[in-house]
Amino acid sequence: MNVLGIIAEYNPFHNGHLYHLEECVKRAGADAAVAVMSGNFTQRGEPAMMDKWTRSRLAVQCGVDLVLELPFAFAVNSAEHFAKGGVGILSGLGCVTHLGFGGEQGTLEELDAIAELLAKAPSEYQQTLKEFLGNGDSYPKAREKTVERMLGKRAAELSLSPNNILAIEYLKQLKTLDSSIIPIMVNRKGPGYFDQRPVGKIASAMAIRRQMDKQRRMDYVPPPVKAALPKAGDTSGYFQLVRSAVLRCREAELAKIFSVGEGLEHKLKKQIRTSGSLEELVEAVSSKRYPKARIRRILCQLLMGLTAFEPVFYARVLAAGEKGTRLLREAKKKSGIPIITNINKEAHLPDLLSYDTLSGDIYNLLTGHDLYEQCDQVKRPYIEVGK
Amino acid sequence: MNVLGIIAEYNPFHNGHLYHLEECVKRAGADAAVAVMSGNFTQRGEPAMMDKWTRSRLAVQCGVDLVLELPFAFAVNSAEHFAKGGVGILSGLGCVTHLGFGGEQGTLEELDAIAELLAKAPSEYQQTLKEFLGNGDSYPKAREKTVERMLGKRAAELSLSPNNILAIEYLKQLKTLDSSIIPIMVNRKGPGYFDQRPVGKIASAMAIRRQMDKQRRMDYVPPPVKAALPKAGDTSGYFQLVRSAVLRCREAELAKIFSVGEGLEHKLKKQIRTSGSLEELVEAVSSKRYPKARIRRILCQLLMGLTAFEPVFYARVLAAGEKGTRLLREAKKKSGIPIITNINKEAHLPDLLSYDTLSGDIYNLLTGHDLYEQCDQVKRPYIEVGK
Repeated sequence: MNVLGIIAEYNPFHNGHLYHLEECVKRAGADAAVAVMSGNFTQRGEPAMMDKWTRSRLAVQCGVDLVLELPFAFAVNSAEHFAKGGVGILSGLGCVTHLGFGGEQGTLEELDAIAELLAKAPSEYQQTLKEFLGNGDSYPKAREKTVERMLGKRAAELSLSPNNILAIEYLKQLKTLDSSIIPIMVNRKGPGYFDQRPVGKIASAMAIRRQMDKQRRMDYVPPPVKAALPKAGDTSGYFQLVRSAVLRCREAELAKIFSVGEGLEHKLKKQIRTSGSLEELVEAVSSKRYPKARIRRILCQLLMGLTAFEPVFYARVLAAGEKGTRLLREAKKKSGIPIITNINKEAHLPDLLSYDTLSGDIYNLLTGHDLYEQCDQVKRPYIEVGK
Repeated sequence: MNVLGIIAEYNPFHNGHLYHLEECVKRAGADAAVAVMSGNFTQRGEPAMMDKWTRSRLAVQCGVDLVLELPFAFAVNSAEHFAKGGVGILSGLGCVTHLGFGGEQGTLEELDAIAELLAKAPSEYQQTLKEFLGNGDSYPKAREKTVERMLGKRAAELSLSPNNILAIEYLKQLKTLDSSIIPIMVNRKGPGYFDQRPVGKIASAMAIRRQMDKQRRMDYVPPPVKAALPKAGDTSGYFQLVRSAVLRCREAELAKIFSVGEGLEHKLKKQIRTSGSLEELVEAVSSKRYPKARIRRILCQLLMGLTAFEPVFYARVLAAGEKGTRLLREAKKKSGIPIITNINKEAHLPDLLSYDTLSGDIYNLLTGHDLYEQCDQVKRPYIEVGK
């Protein structure tokens, strides 16, 4: 039985995702598809436009068979950690045969060569990297230059586009785990990650979230999502929560937040007073060393109190179709990681899970959802019968 | 030179406060009056209706010569700590000769006898107290019964009314410090602490805050307050901040919050999900052991992260008239405690001060005040010239 794995945010699930899913299923000859999906907060370090229960249900209604939560600690983190979490869970399940992801340019072979270099990190790689870092380059810049010197200009260019960054990290994690999962890369159809203009019936998730009026965006999502979009919660109170968290966090505690390196704590504490919006704050605090996306993630990590953590993998079920529930039974026999369907029934919960439940609570507080009915201790996975 | 000290909240300053101030000044033959006033959060564990800078300015405009901040750790705390902070600061100044406070019933001598018993706590007192506690009485109840057994029924009754509770604590602190400050008790004129109905031109602060329409409350406050009342900030977002703080605080951390004793953390974590307002939450969590006022204070302490603290005294200036600035110069020579007019100029700030500045920030966030212009690091004391 072939099982396709996907790592996604589905924020929201749109026609591009549907195309990607169907294409990957076809190429993998897959009997079922399982997605590991970010929870209520995304890799951009922002509240998702719909909560994880809704997004996972929509994914199942759009054709995914099983949706597992990518734990907060991996999801709201760098591409490397995001990939580590996603691949770690899919690999841990023991029944996933293929991993499907998107690419922007280049072939799987080209990206694989870069991933090989990063995974093995031979001494020449390390020395070159050290050299560029010593010259004052930021880590991503030094890495890009090292890739360029060792694999050429095209490889360096390929390693920079958003989807490729993730693709390379997925490939790297598969190598690190010495996994037998077969990678499948489907090149993005339609607009790029940052593109605001739709191509045909496909628009980027970012464009759907931000640029479109409520009627127009309906053209770019499958029917189940059309029905759910108007009910998306208002997350405009997020900055108020972030500000209160930054104000309440002492500099010494701030310095312990996962993605915070040297010196940011003073700057953040200072700029929080004069920034009138999240974007203003991100702009004021960002730098070569701290790009905007990292700042956004730091603020979100700070809100959840994420400090250094030990990567632990578990498969928390958010939603499943009938095929998905069969897959779960299968995985329960083969899985090397805990499979969690009801956190109240687990004797020992992984430490990392507390960030998932807290981010559920904070999201509910933010959107005015019921703090009891909608909390992770009460809410049950969506199970679709007859699919 | 006689100097009157007062410990107050002035939330808001009203005609009853004016009467109390004038009466105490007269009876003390005082040349100047200094008030130690709660900051942005009050002993009820709630945001004040106006910020500390406004309330202290109004106090000066209404006749107080110098206003110092009662640090958050004392202000949002039990009557005992509230009194300890206020008397500690007034006594530390070295130039205060009289302490004026209100009483409801009974004479100064009667309350003094109770204070003497509590301050000395002779072995008979301790044994009796232990006996009642052993029988399952709460601490306040056991104390009341002990006072009754040792000083009679009337003393026990006197020790229970809100203003007398504070009066007794002030007297107790003066004894504990072996202070030469002379207590002056002015019996409350007009309505009691909890009374909602005004008497003549005097209404309780609670009635002014809660029960009255905007026009009517003008009858019960002096002219400077009339001008300021309409500008009072909206503090209705307080519950949202409290909820986010409770959700984010792990049970183990919650148990460390100053006024939290055994077992409350589970109850609070549970009830936070089903309570739709602060009052609902307070109602749901309160008990014989945790009366409502204590719950409100706990929530406020939690928001500021107040854990066990070492009582330290300092005189932080919020506002002064001309006489007050002269008094400050005098106090700077005699004071046994730091006098702080600009926190940026202090080499070593008391640890407790961080709760005062944080509660300033949180208050500003809550009311939409500018987080820079209005913060404790930027805002300067109000100095009135020509008064």
